[in-house]
Amino acid sequence: MNTKLLEARRDLYKSMQEQCLAPLWESLHNLVPKQPAPPYAAALWRYQDILPHLLRAGELITAEEAVRRVLVLENPAMPGRSSITQSLYAGLQLILPGEVAPAHRHTQSALRFIVSGKGAYTAVNGERTTMHPGDFVLTPSWNWHDHGNPGVDGVAEPVVWLDGLDIPMVRFFDAGFAENGDQASQSVVRPEGHSFAAYGNNMAPVRTVHKERKELGSPVFSYPYARSREALHTLARNEDIDAWHGVKLRFINPQTGGAPMPTIGACMQLLPKGFSGLRHRGTDGTVYSVVEGHGSATIGGQRFAFAPRDTFVVPSWATVSFDAPEDVVLFSFSDRPVLEAMGLLREEFLPD
Amino acid sequence: MNTKLLEARRDLYKSMQEQCLAPLWESLHNLVPKQPAPPYAAALWRYQDILPHLLRAGELITAEEAVRRVLVLENPAMPGRSSITQSLYAGLQLILPGEVAPAHRHTQSALRFIVSGKGAYTAVNGERTTMHPGDFVLTPSWNWHDHGNPGVDGVAEPVVWLDGLDIPMVRFFDAGFAENGDQASQSVVRPEGHSFAAYGNNMAPVRTVHKERKELGSPVFSYPYARSREALHTLARNEDIDAWHGVKLRFINPQTGGAPMPTIGACMQLLPKGFSGLRHRGTDGTVYSVVEGHGSATIGGQRFAFAPRDTFVVPSWATVSFDAPEDVVLFSFSDRPVLEAMGLLREEFLPD
Amino acid sequence: MNTKLLEARRDLYKSMQEQCLAPLWESLHNLVPKQPAPPYAAALWRYQDILPHLLRAGELITAEEAVRRVLVLENPAMPGRSSITQSLYAGLQLILPGEVAPAHRHTQSALRFIVSGKGAYTAVNGERTTMHPGDFVLTPSWNWHDHGNPGVDGVAEPVVWLDGLDIPMVRFFDAGFAENGDQASQSVVRPEGHSFAAYGNNMAPVRTVHKERKELGSPVFSYPYARSREALHTLARNEDIDAWHGVKLRFINPQTGGAPMPTIGACMQLLPKGFSGLRHRGTDGTVYSVVEGHGSATIGGQRFAFAPRDTFVVPSWATVSFDAPEDVVLFSFSDRPVLEAMGLLREEFLPD
Amino acid sequence: MNTKLLEARRDLYKSMQEQCLAPLWESLHNLVPKQPAPPYAAALWRYQDILPHLLRAGELITAEEAVRRVLVLENPAMPGRSSITQSLYAGLQLILPGEVAPAHRHTQSALRFIVSGKGAYTAVNGERTTMHPGDFVLTPSWNWHDHGNPGVDGVAEPVVWLDGLDIPMVRFFDAGFAENGDQASQSVVRPEGHSFAAYGNNMAPVRTVHKERKELGSPVFSYPYARSREALHTLARNEDIDAWHGVKLRFINPQTGGAPMPTIGACMQLLPKGFSGLRHRGTDGTVYSVVEGHGSATIGGQRFAFAPRDTFVVPSWATVSFDAPEDVVLFSFSDRPVLEAMGLLREEFLPD
Repeated sequence: MNTKLLEARRDLYKSMQEQCLAPLWESLHNLVPKQPAPPYAAALWRYQDILPHLLRAGELITAEEAVRRVLVLENPAMPGRSSITQSLYAGLQLILPGEVAPAHRHTQSALRFIVSGKGAYTAVNGERTTMHPGDFVLTPSWNWHDHGNPGVDGVAEPVVWLDGLDIPMVRFFDAGFAENGDQASQSVVRPEGHSFAAYGNNMAPVRTVHKERKELGSPVFSYPYARSREALHTLARNEDIDAWHGVKLRFINPQTGGAPMPTIGACMQLLPKGFSGLRHRGTDGTVYSVVEGHGSATIGGQRFAFAPRDTFVVPSWATVSFDAPEDVVLFSFSDRPVLEAMGLLREEFLPD
Repeated sequence: MNTKLLEARRDLYKSMQEQCLAPLWESLHNLVPKQPAPPYAAALWRYQDILPHLLRAGELITAEEAVRRVLVLENPAMPGRSSITQSLYAGLQLILPGEVAPAHRHTQSALRFIVSGKGAYTAVNGERTTMHPGDFVLTPSWNWHDHGNPGVDGVAEPVVWLDGLDIPMVRFFDAGFAENGDQASQSVVRPEGHSFAAYGNNMAPVRTVHKERKELGSPVFSYPYARSREALHTLARNEDIDAWHGVKLRFINPQTGGAPMPTIGACMQLLPKGFSGLRHRGTDGTVYSVVEGHGSATIGGQRFAFAPRDTFVVPSWATVSFDAPEDVVLFSFSDRPVLEAMGLLREEFLPD
Repeated sequence: MNTKLLEARRDLYKSMQEQCLAPLWESLHNLVPKQPAPPYAAALWRYQDILPHLLRAGELITAEEAVRRVLVLENPAMPGRSSITQSLYAGLQLILPGEVAPAHRHTQSALRFIVSGKGAYTAVNGERTTMHPGDFVLTPSWNWHDHGNPGVDGVAEPVVWLDGLDIPMVRFFDAGFAENGDQASQSVVRPEGHSFAAYGNNMAPVRTVHKERKELGSPVFSYPYARSREALHTLARNEDIDAWHGVKLRFINPQTGGAPMPTIGACMQLLPKGFSGLRHRGTDGTVYSVVEGHGSATIGGQRFAFAPRDTFVVPSWATVSFDAPEDVVLFSFSDRPVLEAMGLLREEFLPD
Repeated sequence: MNTKLLEARRDLYKSMQEQCLAPLWESLHNLVPKQPAPPYAAALWRYQDILPHLLRAGELITAEEAVRRVLVLENPAMPGRSSITQSLYAGLQLILPGEVAPAHRHTQSALRFIVSGKGAYTAVNGERTTMHPGDFVLTPSWNWHDHGNPGVDGVAEPVVWLDGLDIPMVRFFDAGFAENGDQASQSVVRPEGHSFAAYGNNMAPVRTVHKERKELGSPVFSYPYARSREALHTLARNEDIDAWHGVKLRFINPQTGGAPMPTIGACMQLLPKGFSGLRHRGTDGTVYSVVEGHGSATIGGQRFAFAPRDTFVVPSWATVSFDAPEDVVLFSFSDRPVLEAMGLLREEFLPD
């Protein structure tokens, strides 16, 4: 290009900029890439490295002061963004015996996956559920919720869970609202187990006078590990093993058959001892929590050894495969239901 | 009307008849009634009256000969129609120890509700489920199914279940197909419990290579009474009692939240001791089977006392209310999902 | 079988009958047939044979007296049943200049397909639509509707349309309600064309305060032939010809993409000059009205020549194929959406 | 807090940072805001200010070189982000007589709203649609598309349209793929008007052999202004005026009744002469293009006067109201269908 033309363009760009106009032809290749090139990286957090910090935070930060005593798992390639993928937030929360996290609600959808300890509860809309390691608990969008750790059967111990939220999505779409309750804890309005009895057994209530549920979140807000674990092992015994996934179940909202919350999907999978899986990839960046067993994940060619309670993240379109020298159970969550709704989910299963 | 006009009309009608034409103005009031006036009646069959006939049929009719040893509950107002309502078929089937009912499939959807005895199984698509009293078992449209009674734990006893089918609907819409298998029983291709592990725990399988289920029937084909009973009692303890229904749960297809089969809906309800319900009515004629307890149903003003294992039918738009001097559990099924799909479901809950 | 056994069975049957019990083993083969064997027949009604009767009815039956001056097309194999298939009703209605058919509503869904004449209207919920030959007009379930023939542009002529209703279905499911309005005609509350402007152009209204439409029927209640005809010819010019159907379009409810009414589907198809179609069959018995052209339908091997305004019926599972020595346009309707909802639609396209 | 505690925390934070852990308690208030506080601003671009730059770009940038000669409307509060809201991209594209924009496809969904000039076309999957001012044209995700400006009726003129894309969403979810075709233009495989004939008239094709459309985008890819304008004026004559919206229609996918593309919704509204609307707000940040008339929008208390062809943006949760001293027609688009799918759409209509 000759100098004159270059100058003319520079003049144009400058004049355009004053009008808040930008030349697409200079940036199109970045805006419409050939394939995903996420700005975040694969990473693994060892529970044994995190635990000392969690315990130290337990000493330095009171529950009242902290509102939430959580260590945010920040993607190493996106420091300061409070995100583990571009669309998801993850953190490890510690609640000590006797502590209470006061009731609030927000448009952000949240999941709690119990990593360690017994005796804490989450309450959703006035109904508590006692949490055990491996349980998958929901606090869907705009539902009042609170937590506490009164202990169970006379024993109280520190409880740690993995928080998963859609905070970055809600921020991106500028659609976040929040509100604090006026009591430390919600009044208990229904006994524990009510929602599960009403919706958790492939049945649903028939009421004469009832407001139709308009919420998109699942009415079952606690999926006990006792059941998921048994289901996985039953299927494994039946040799229903997938070459990529092992035995994998997705949690559903029994009112729709779809994801338990509109923004976050979650799965539990068993890799039977000796499993060496094939590589696959998808556009849903995914966070994994190791429930049982030692093994490894190979992500984009890089091998990550994992142990129980570790957390790792697989970026969008990075290949992943698993090896399990012993029985391994993995919990995972991602933004998959949003990608499906947008028509943006793409998956590839490599033959070797 | 004068004689001449009457004659002229008679001539017209006669000439029309030859052309297969009929005068609407003579029949409109019948074709478009003010409200439902079903040609069938409320009725109750006492199990103690049926049982001797069932046992006698067990002597006179071999399993091989009979294909199905079933006493059809024919609505007293529609003899010879093999129907309990205009759209539904119901019958009580006896299967003796050691008997086998060979594999077949048909477009008719069927349910089995176990009334008495243990040790029999239903197999659907090569997977067996052992049946216990109170279990609700499906054989959805065009699924291979067979039955047998090998006994369980070394004990074999006669087993009786209530069959519910959409035979009259399929006949009315002229859409019935059927096919016999080439073996007495299906080969068992999956261990018992597989489908329930895969779909029954608020989870669903994730497979890399899978045909999407296109069937409208639920992948959970056995809903064990152990779970439904516990759910009902949990809700009753929580005092979640409806003035018309007591505690009522509908069985769902966990893939959709809708009815377990597209043509038949089913519910289980607990009327706690002392319950005296209000009257309601709906356009879905409904068949009830008494699971536990003695009580009474007042149908269109007529009182029917019932005992465990009795069957009764409530016609479309007849009022019904229940009284339970002791804890009562009722199973029921109707054509409700079809009425909903057609926009023809109407219900009324009377205030006293 | 020996005499003794036969007698024992006879005794059992007799005793069962008193209890309203019937032996399934004696009737199973009829209840679950190998394939559909409808009790009704293929038939064709020539408009030229019907017209004299219609006109004669116009003389002998006043509009006031008749409420509806309709000649019911009764299937020749089911006399007295007021049905053209087991599930559908069809009739030809005559409305003379100046006549009015008073407002009423019923749970039965109705369609009007205009066969001859101009200047009549149907009003649905207070909005009139002027009808032209080939127009497809709906009066969905429980909508107030009335008709009149005031003429148009100063010209008034007799108008004939084909009525299609789900009367037999509503009767079978015992779900019919009806109500007469207190005025001869509804008050006109919206100008003609309102609903089409609101819903007919691939757009839908956005209102701040609005009750969500809960009706299953289409908000577009008139589908003008001018548009359907042009669409068919455009596609035919583009050579988008199906070997079985020619060019075939189904009418949709633009709010769902599904059938215009939950119980009745309708289509319009163009068989271009020279078209000789292949045979197909389906479980939805179908009523056809000839809009344009002479041709023939071969139904279950029997050839029926047709001319404009003729009506014919193809039974469930009977093969049908079409021949068109000149451009032919056919309108058709069936119970297809109900069969789809029930999982009972089956189709077969024969290769020659 | 005492110095010692502060120091202890600083030590903890530092040590956490090395492990990619961040303290939630320091940032929670930002992550979960009380209500939306979007980082972008209300803004208006006058067409008369943009046009000179567009024409100058027409001189300096050839079509071949530019691939896309588009001026991106960058939100003034987010320079360098190529975004008009956080989730949407908008730009004005110029195509000169004789130019061709080569075929490509990408997962990004795009809309074209024609602002000025006649004679250009967009082709989607081998079918062209000639564009006129006010037409709304889609190129849904992963559909091949190209453009050209051959003129019409012997006249060729510069054509300008508004591009709306979900580029920021696809980037945020890391789900973008793109591919160039191997020809400058797609081969024309179907005549113009084919898709509209097949899907645009409240009808849909019935084909014997057809792949079910799995795409989420509308099969109608051109919504002509002739129809939308007439619909709006018909409803305005019927005085169906909303106090906030005037007469407003949303474009639908006639196969679902939902938005034309899964990520972008679009509307057209008429503000009749003299209309002075009430304030409303929603979580869907919205881009408007003025089709006809002069008027003003008051956004978050700030008044923006507008003229035909101007573009303006209303941020999430900012109030907006309109005044129309003459008939005004506005086109608008937003991320509303995604917010609905995520359960994040919230709206408020203020009473004065």
